[in-house]
Amino acid sequence: MVATHTNKQRLIRTLRVKNANVIGTLSKLISTLSDGGADLGSIKTHHVGELYVVRDITVVVNDENHLAELIRKVEHLPNVSLKQVIDEVLEMHNGGKIKTVPTYPVAHIEDLRKIYTPGVAQVCSMIAENPELAKTYTAKQRNVALVTNGSRVLGLGNIGPTASLPVMEGKAALFSQLTGLNMFPILLKTRDPKKFVETVVEIASGFGAIQMEDIETPVCFEIEDELKKRLNIPVMHDDQHGTAVVALSAVINSCKLAKRSLKELKVGQIGLGAAGLAIASLIMHYTGQSVMGSDPNEIAQKRLTDKGGSVGSLEEVFASCDLVVMTTGRRDLVPPSLVRQGQILLCLSNPYPEIKVEDALKAGASYALDGTRVNNLLGYPGIFKGALDVHATTITTSMLISASEAIANAAPENDPVPNALDPRVHDKVARAVAHAAIREGVAQYIPDEDHFYTMED
Amino acid sequence: MVATHTNKQRLIRTLRVKNANVIGTLSKLISTLSDGGADLGSIKTHHVGELYVVRDITVVVNDENHLAELIRKVEHLPNVSLKQVIDEVLEMHNGGKIKTVPTYPVAHIEDLRKIYTPGVAQVCSMIAENPELAKTYTAKQRNVALVTNGSRVLGLGNIGPTASLPVMEGKAALFSQLTGLNMFPILLKTRDPKKFVETVVEIASGFGAIQMEDIETPVCFEIEDELKKRLNIPVMHDDQHGTAVVALSAVINSCKLAKRSLKELKVGQIGLGAAGLAIASLIMHYTGQSVMGSDPNEIAQKRLTDKGGSVGSLEEVFASCDLVVMTTGRRDLVPPSLVRQGQILLCLSNPYPEIKVEDALKAGASYALDGTRVNNLLGYPGIFKGALDVHATTITTSMLISASEAIANAAPENDPVPNALDPRVHDKVARAVAHAAIREGVAQYIPDEDHFYTMED
Repeated sequence: MVATHTNKQRLIRTLRVKNANVIGTLSKLISTLSDGGADLGSIKTHHVGELYVVRDITVVVNDENHLAELIRKVEHLPNVSLKQVIDEVLEMHNGGKIKTVPTYPVAHIEDLRKIYTPGVAQVCSMIAENPELAKTYTAKQRNVALVTNGSRVLGLGNIGPTASLPVMEGKAALFSQLTGLNMFPILLKTRDPKKFVETVVEIASGFGAIQMEDIETPVCFEIEDELKKRLNIPVMHDDQHGTAVVALSAVINSCKLAKRSLKELKVGQIGLGAAGLAIASLIMHYTGQSVMGSDPNEIAQKRLTDKGGSVGSLEEVFASCDLVVMTTGRRDLVPPSLVRQGQILLCLSNPYPEIKVEDALKAGASYALDGTRVNNLLGYPGIFKGALDVHATTITTSMLISASEAIANAAPENDPVPNALDPRVHDKVARAVAHAAIREGVAQYIPDEDHFYTMED
Repeated sequence: MVATHTNKQRLIRTLRVKNANVIGTLSKLISTLSDGGADLGSIKTHHVGELYVVRDITVVVNDENHLAELIRKVEHLPNVSLKQVIDEVLEMHNGGKIKTVPTYPVAHIEDLRKIYTPGVAQVCSMIAENPELAKTYTAKQRNVALVTNGSRVLGLGNIGPTASLPVMEGKAALFSQLTGLNMFPILLKTRDPKKFVETVVEIASGFGAIQMEDIETPVCFEIEDELKKRLNIPVMHDDQHGTAVVALSAVINSCKLAKRSLKELKVGQIGLGAAGLAIASLIMHYTGQSVMGSDPNEIAQKRLTDKGGSVGSLEEVFASCDLVVMTTGRRDLVPPSLVRQGQILLCLSNPYPEIKVEDALKAGASYALDGTRVNNLLGYPGIFKGALDVHATTITTSMLISASEAIANAAPENDPVPNALDPRVHDKVARAVAHAAIREGVAQYIPDEDHFYTMED
């Protein structure tokens, strides 16, 4: 969930190959790709002929050179003919990944008279008299603004708002699919936190909640604090709190799988950026115990001690903590010699962890988990759905912890993480968050059970 | 298309009635409603029993008192039992009228890897290197921001941004349905034109075009001028130019039906608000002739003379013009005595025209048209689609005139207006606007014919 710093983007490509119906051809092809360093994705049969089979094989490669090298090897295989190299990623991005559609298709003039003039005037008048009704008779309470200036995009840095749009559309498309609610990317040009806040406040009335995304530190802290102060709706910086919620759920389940009690463990956090600091802070709220953090940046260290944590070197954290979470973005940062017998390690940087799971286990860790499946997608959809369902005015720490517990509980037995594409997971998270909001007194509405317990309504 | 000023909103209700199977029952019911002053909408059979039929009858009534009075009358009819009064308008507004959905549903983890991490990074990097690619690989070039502060909502005045949202959602839902592109309402709080412009410029990078809606005069002029100067994408205030496009199409077809040549006629414009001024201006561009306008407001008069028009009283306009367009919002403003033999009259205020069509014809008009079917919905979808299809940097007067001609040409024979819900109409408008943009040199992209000539792509 935290990217390792690398200038090269890994590429996803689909190889369309026509194999003669000769035993061993596919396995030879697969081993060639695998031995050549490609990560294999799905293999789909595209066409079956009498003498041949056409298949689409998806691979992840390091870069264009790596791809060219693999293609050369494939082209030398007997009985295999490479028909096409398809860039499905680009194809799926063509025209964008999110769209607006009418809730009710307008088929007849009579429909038009109901959703547009003259019918609409009645609804406007009702809302003008009682603005709360906008939460029922418009999409406002289903709309989340996804705000960014693209100043700190995962693995890419400050690429600016326009270049960050594919990430935002991805998050918005997934949110819409998993919750049935609406998310729309709002790209801001400015890097000035004051102007950022002014702009978001100015346009906030059309939205039920604000998700902040991919905004650089330290201005992300100032922007979030100020927006929370000035708006009476949920505001959450996903890179901090969404990440922390998902990390805490993985921490909870890692302890369960290692048969240890989290509240009795000394916890360490390596990397105190926006994500690491939020993880440390949420764990401290959850356990009631201090967390020891490590980061070369002194301002980041001060942020942790202000929240009640302590600070140590990488070596000190490994020497004194039973469970260590790592979000440094630094590949192979941790030598196996640092690992102590029985430690629980979450090395969450993607795609290259601080220490490989197998190396950590070999070095004595009782449980180790990397970031491949620990995805923010497990958090924000349910967190926002739960908050919106009960018209919450804010998102509290207790709501975040409830979300972590719900995610942890939704994982299959012996698995630290549930399936992020299962809508039932997000429904459970939403329900937990909504209940927490009611308990905390920040909910303004108690939905009917019917509404509350189904995703589609 | 211009609302008459009235504090009361007319209401749409559906009466669910159970009629005994006795000949004459339905006709008695219908005449009771009609004689009682209800406008009748559709009559749908809801349930057929052996002894009775349940029907849903949609009516438009003046207000709650009028509705109560009609209900009393219906309840006194023999063989009729009123089961329910349904507010379908409110039902259709529940939860809002526009939603976001993913372009491709994400079914499997492999899809996720393509539209989200790690696949998305490749697309972000490409756009960071060449921002023009955002027009292809994101929804940017399909996104229209519908910006308003709700300071001048049709027939309702300054009800503010939140109460205007049902109107905006209606426009957005219809745009999405009719063009396959995306429109999203952006509500601004401010009435200060400078702050309005700053905010829109700040968030413009996620959009291919900006539609301004329901913004009060005179700040709407300043906002539009400034946005056009500062942004390199199409900006259009629909209440001015969208209205003018549709009015000009009705003017063109009215002349055709009256067998007169518009370019030889002296044209008058009664009412010089944002809409009236834009109509007069577009007609002057189209005919090359001056238009005589009438409005008590001296600043509005000056705006017209600055554009090359002349000014006269209501009586003077009627005395000297062959064709008169009225957009005053004032019911029965024009006494039949003013109408001259052979005049063509477009009395466009809704729902009550300046003079009733039958009265105008009785008084000698050769052709008369009211605003019931002259709807802005005929204009903005095709105008924006055409501009977006060719990546136009602005919307020129020539593009607007092309839109008017296309709308006029799309009308069935002997009908002044095409069906606004027919997607083929909007496709024709879009094509005409795109061609005009290319001719004018403001297009940055020539789409493939395949893309260009189909709505869904």
